[in-house]
Amino acid sequence: MGLDQANSKSKKKIIVLGGDGFCGWPTSLHLSQKGHDVTIIDNLSRRNIDNELEAESLTPIQPMHTRLNAWKEISGKTINFYNFDIANEYDRLLDMIQTEMPDVIIHFAEQRAAPYSMKSSKHKRYTVNNNMNATHNVLCAIVESTLDIHLVHLGTMGVYGYGTAGLKIPEGYLDIEVKKEDGERVEQQILYPTNPGSIYHMTKSQDQLLFQYYNKNDNVRITDLHQGIVWGTNTKETNLDDRLINRFDYDGDYGTVLNRFLMQAAVGYPITVHGTGGQTRAFIHIQDSVRCIELAVENPPANNDRVLIFNQMTETHRVADLAKLISKLTDGEIAYVSNPRKEAKENELQVRNDLFLSKGLQPITLNEGLLQEVTEVAKRYKDRVDYQKIPATSLWTKDQQPGIPKWDKGD
Amino acid sequence: MGLDQANSKSKKKIIVLGGDGFCGWPTSLHLSQKGHDVTIIDNLSRRNIDNELEAESLTPIQPMHTRLNAWKEISGKTINFYNFDIANEYDRLLDMIQTEMPDVIIHFAEQRAAPYSMKSSKHKRYTVNNNMNATHNVLCAIVESTLDIHLVHLGTMGVYGYGTAGLKIPEGYLDIEVKKEDGERVEQQILYPTNPGSIYHMTKSQDQLLFQYYNKNDNVRITDLHQGIVWGTNTKETNLDDRLINRFDYDGDYGTVLNRFLMQAAVGYPITVHGTGGQTRAFIHIQDSVRCIELAVENPPANNDRVLIFNQMTETHRVADLAKLISKLTDGEIAYVSNPRKEAKENELQVRNDLFLSKGLQPITLNEGLLQEVTEVAKRYKDRVDYQKIPATSLWTKDQQPGIPKWDKGD
Repeated sequence: MGLDQANSKSKKKIIVLGGDGFCGWPTSLHLSQKGHDVTIIDNLSRRNIDNELEAESLTPIQPMHTRLNAWKEISGKTINFYNFDIANEYDRLLDMIQTEMPDVIIHFAEQRAAPYSMKSSKHKRYTVNNNMNATHNVLCAIVESTLDIHLVHLGTMGVYGYGTAGLKIPEGYLDIEVKKEDGERVEQQILYPTNPGSIYHMTKSQDQLLFQYYNKNDNVRITDLHQGIVWGTNTKETNLDDRLINRFDYDGDYGTVLNRFLMQAAVGYPITVHGTGGQTRAFIHIQDSVRCIELAVENPPANNDRVLIFNQMTETHRVADLAKLISKLTDGEIAYVSNPRKEAKENELQVRNDLFLSKGLQPITLNEGLLQEVTEVAKRYKDRVDYQKIPATSLWTKDQQPGIPKWDKGD
Repeated sequence: MGLDQANSKSKKKIIVLGGDGFCGWPTSLHLSQKGHDVTIIDNLSRRNIDNELEAESLTPIQPMHTRLNAWKEISGKTINFYNFDIANEYDRLLDMIQTEMPDVIIHFAEQRAAPYSMKSSKHKRYTVNNNMNATHNVLCAIVESTLDIHLVHLGTMGVYGYGTAGLKIPEGYLDIEVKKEDGERVEQQILYPTNPGSIYHMTKSQDQLLFQYYNKNDNVRITDLHQGIVWGTNTKETNLDDRLINRFDYDGDYGTVLNRFLMQAAVGYPITVHGTGGQTRAFIHIQDSVRCIELAVENPPANNDRVLIFNQMTETHRVADLAKLISKLTDGEIAYVSNPRKEAKENELQVRNDLFLSKGLQPITLNEGLLQEVTEVAKRYKDRVDYQKIPATSLWTKDQQPGIPKWDKGD
């Protein structure tokens, strides 16, 4: 078998749902760069939510067609783009699948911020309605198409809940023992019991039941990636041209903890730690995130396999420790503020990620160089910051308080 | 405290969502009869589905206002009725809750037939969309109202899956042991791992995650009733007048196994057993079902209790044994037909129902008199039968076959 033939066999037709977002965009570029035939479907909901929240990406992300034209210009590769809503336009989704006949569908098309999902009844209801119908429509359309399509889904470590001291969180399935009536103990392996911490995380737990069911009933091949908190901004591909720049969320709803700390330090805002910062979280750099998705695409489950679950993370850190590290690196001041979330003050978290390691992932872990890179990005676009959007103000219940530090801008 | 005061304290304001359906209607009458102040919300979706399927209730159920006027005439009690769709009219639901300030909301407002949920993509999508948004809207509105409302939900035994030999299915929560990294075993109690057998059952598993979350985050008091297959038609109250008659589904989508067998025997149609009939199922008579709901209303969980789960069933039977029993009682012929469902050929099922027994339930179990009563109802309305609607034709996958017996009507 010649090299060309090998390449053509490994080249896949891939539809990326939600390919305009923070993970979807660099993933689309990465897979296109690797020679796959990529089509993006996105209703630009994330940009519309920017409008609603009056909080833009810190980085000046370009309109979709500017992005795609730049990519064509630089790489010579074409990514197709269709703007529609998979949660509400089922017939169009089905038609697209039947026409494109993809080998793989990667599903990022869900509302993905916990604080946004908790802002109000409207936001809770949007998150449940959008995420449930989006995931279900994809599964339903795959079955209706009768095509053998591998579905790769971006889930979250958050479905596991806060972790259990002394128990390394396994990859999706937990070995248990149950005592029968006659005293006999039986061993079973079950989907890890979920304990989601927000409406958003809960929808990802519900997704798991959809996957379990469609896998069992219809043999749909599914990979569910339980991803940690993504940090960093750019990947090898998004760095190729300013017009390809990735989104950087710094606001209280969409900004995630490590990136927020780095950005706060870069612009001279206090590093806001919620509560004591005793929460331990799992992390992954955006460059590893896109690499993991590539590995998931290359290593599909077989036709009668159960849902394949990877923990997509490379390290765990206590939030307070991260704040201290960044404070040390940047001379930034830490502000311990109220925690708008209802959660345990402290938790242990140990996580297995053997599966991605076995597939060849070489983890990028926290290092000064990469932290510095995020800081540089934040400094470069400092003038775009709306300081009022930095605090986390979305409350889990009426008994919580927003996480607003005392701060004089000092200029 | 005088008797009047005691009565007034135990009299509750109750909203019944889905109060026009097979379980909702007799429950509404029963609670009204017991002195509770009952308001029904229903969008009449079940009657509209009758129109779609061209399959009416075997019994001539009356329009809602005929039913309610008859009830007023007979009992002197008023049940209010509002026709709207709780899955799509959130503001109206919230307004109703804020205005009525109910003590209890009973939630029957979900699409409840497994075969209907499997008919086509459209039916799968309707079931997921309707059931998820209905349940979520109720929870969201309860929290937004800030009222302390006890939510009673009709779930299903089907969330447990097919049962495990030698393990009595507990009431919602399973005791497990997990081995930690250091070899130490820790005991935990988890939500029983679900293994739903249809899209419909899957939505009830997803409901459980909604309940778990809203109970944890917002302390909503929730009782989830995991109900077996309901049989029988009338209750003490629906028997009071022909205009109060309850629905009797005999068609392949909405008819449930025991009632279908009785009806088939009554009209001289073969008793259709799917596969070998080796499936073991849990059952409850409609009279016990309404009594259980009354007991659930009278025994709410406390404010910081987790979700209270009852198994609402009184006995288990193997489907083939029921067919033989009914064949013997009625001289009806059994036809073993293809199973349109994808399921295990045989399963064991043992179920705990200690909780309802401890609250005073005195189970009605299968007896000739009650079986005879169902047969009488079926015979009385024999002329209303559309024989073409009897077979189960909704297929779980394209590899299944419809359950159509060879049959000459013989007249």
